[in-house]
Amino acid sequence: MKNEEIQLASRPEGLPDEHTFRFVSTEMPAPKENEILVKSLYLSVDPYMRGRMREGKSYAAPYSIDQVITGGVVGEVVESKSSNFQKGDIVTGMLNWARYQTVQEGIVQKVNPSLAPISTNLGVLGMPGATAYFGLMDIGQPKEGETVVVSGAAGAVGMLVGQIAKIQGARVVGIAGSQEKIDYLVNELNFDVAINYKDADFKSKLADACSNGVDVYFENVGGEISDEVFKHLNTHARIPVCGAISSYNNKELDLGPRVQTILIKNRALMKGFLVSDYANRFPEGIKQLAAWIMAGKLKYEETIIDGFENTPEAFLGLFKGTNLGKLLVKVADPSQSS
Amino acid sequence: MKNEEIQLASRPEGLPDEHTFRFVSTEMPAPKENEILVKSLYLSVDPYMRGRMREGKSYAAPYSIDQVITGGVVGEVVESKSSNFQKGDIVTGMLNWARYQTVQEGIVQKVNPSLAPISTNLGVLGMPGATAYFGLMDIGQPKEGETVVVSGAAGAVGMLVGQIAKIQGARVVGIAGSQEKIDYLVNELNFDVAINYKDADFKSKLADACSNGVDVYFENVGGEISDEVFKHLNTHARIPVCGAISSYNNKELDLGPRVQTILIKNRALMKGFLVSDYANRFPEGIKQLAAWIMAGKLKYEETIIDGFENTPEAFLGLFKGTNLGKLLVKVADPSQSS
Repeated sequence: MKNEEIQLASRPEGLPDEHTFRFVSTEMPAPKENEILVKSLYLSVDPYMRGRMREGKSYAAPYSIDQVITGGVVGEVVESKSSNFQKGDIVTGMLNWARYQTVQEGIVQKVNPSLAPISTNLGVLGMPGATAYFGLMDIGQPKEGETVVVSGAAGAVGMLVGQIAKIQGARVVGIAGSQEKIDYLVNELNFDVAINYKDADFKSKLADACSNGVDVYFENVGGEISDEVFKHLNTHARIPVCGAISSYNNKELDLGPRVQTILIKNRALMKGFLVSDYANRFPEGIKQLAAWIMAGKLKYEETIIDGFENTPEAFLGLFKGTNLGKLLVKVADPSQSS
Repeated sequence: MKNEEIQLASRPEGLPDEHTFRFVSTEMPAPKENEILVKSLYLSVDPYMRGRMREGKSYAAPYSIDQVITGGVVGEVVESKSSNFQKGDIVTGMLNWARYQTVQEGIVQKVNPSLAPISTNLGVLGMPGATAYFGLMDIGQPKEGETVVVSGAAGAVGMLVGQIAKIQGARVVGIAGSQEKIDYLVNELNFDVAINYKDADFKSKLADACSNGVDVYFENVGGEISDEVFKHLNTHARIPVCGAISSYNNKELDLGPRVQTILIKNRALMKGFLVSDYANRFPEGIKQLAAWIMAGKLKYEETIIDGFENTPEAFLGLFKGTNLGKLLVKVADPSQSS
């Protein structure tokens, strides 16, 4: 039986394409002492991974050329030489983009599959959930009656941010890129307003939606959309800077209006963060998110692309904005035993 | 006896010039009940005043056309109809650019002229001092051994910021615009490094000075100087945004590299502030600054332009960078009695 992995074939300039990735057939690995053999069930594709395809240190080490790509994975233990894991256990961790892999026992966490669909460990109960929760609650600190704007609002993080802000009593304005997403945000998630940034009258719609100003802007996209939001900041506005997906594939320097005078005028705060900054508070965040889901206050959405062979295409979909909610690749079904 | 005041004659586009200001001869005012007549001794010229010459609300109300300009003033009570003030008292407050003016008793604070030169109430023991103290200590939070970079380092606020950072045990890099200023910062104020941004090799000098990265960047100038500093931020860097003087006279939109990805990469914080945000903590700040001065740990510098008639020229000097430390206009000497 053969295994297969996806390597970084070359560093993309601009948008990644078919030359960026390489599928490589490998031998099926065998676990050593204290290792487990994990069969991948779901792979996570996330915007931050584009940064790791660049040379030079960003906040995470860059991927190496001709080496397997790593990311969030949910898998099943199919063979265990660890006393901590049994065959059939569902695990999650930062693992290889491979159909099978051996893993040291300390690298993955066990997942309780009876709590929620196991894929949620890559979404609402995983990194995107914690990102939304800590970025909004710790940096954004929305208060009742305030206006919270979130860009990338129909993405994995954005739709959680908006709903958490609603739970806090804020008025929520979402920005997304299709009528379908806009409808979903308003009709399904009860956002107060949702605006399509591709509309010709985006600026005036945003101005209308923010006639009381913007108290929190949860930044996922950067670029001209954000330049426009910045015009509406209120005094003491907070801007958790989570991502800037519009710029990740830029070949040129990303130029826009400098923010200093805007920040002074509004005594506004802008703070970049990574979910890993809150690693020691993860359990608190995940517990709260799970409680809101149980209470019917928080919905999540997944866009699942079927097939390991479609992983590169799924990744590219992030930058085309085709996904609603968390974008995942389903590699395999769990065994009947689990 | 006649009085004289300086009005805003027209809103400047770009750099203010001789059409911006108008000297107007007025009647000598007489104080009513609970008012005092104040003779101006020192006028403060400050970069923020440029913002008030624009139309539209910034953080302070705009000056009105054909109305007298207001700013920080130290003056002497020459006639009192208030039981709280006596002839000869030295007072300070936000007052008119006028040789004489009547003031309601609640508008000004009394100054103790035996503590320090009365002009320091417009500098180290006034708004610039509080700006440096609270912006650095509250937002910048420099720690021992960290690298603090300050732009506009030879200005009223900047030179205090650098010295306070030194008191906190930080390594201090100042950026200023002349060899004279650079020499002063290093030789008189013991900055670890000072760099002239007009030098052809400014970028490499900055990189050398910040080889351990930048933990705090106290932002006074904006523009390309700051773009360059941002390249050297350390993880968890803090950027108190106090001013962006390089942009105040811009006619075009101030374009530069967008900061979102830099802030994420370094989990950095950027926060605009106004000294008035700390109004209720002023006494704490001024007391600490005075104590450092008494202990010989904090030096201040003033550039004093003589003559009310030279006030516009003094103001313009702010944007030419001709001043070392606090830029003031001396209008008159106090009477012999005080």
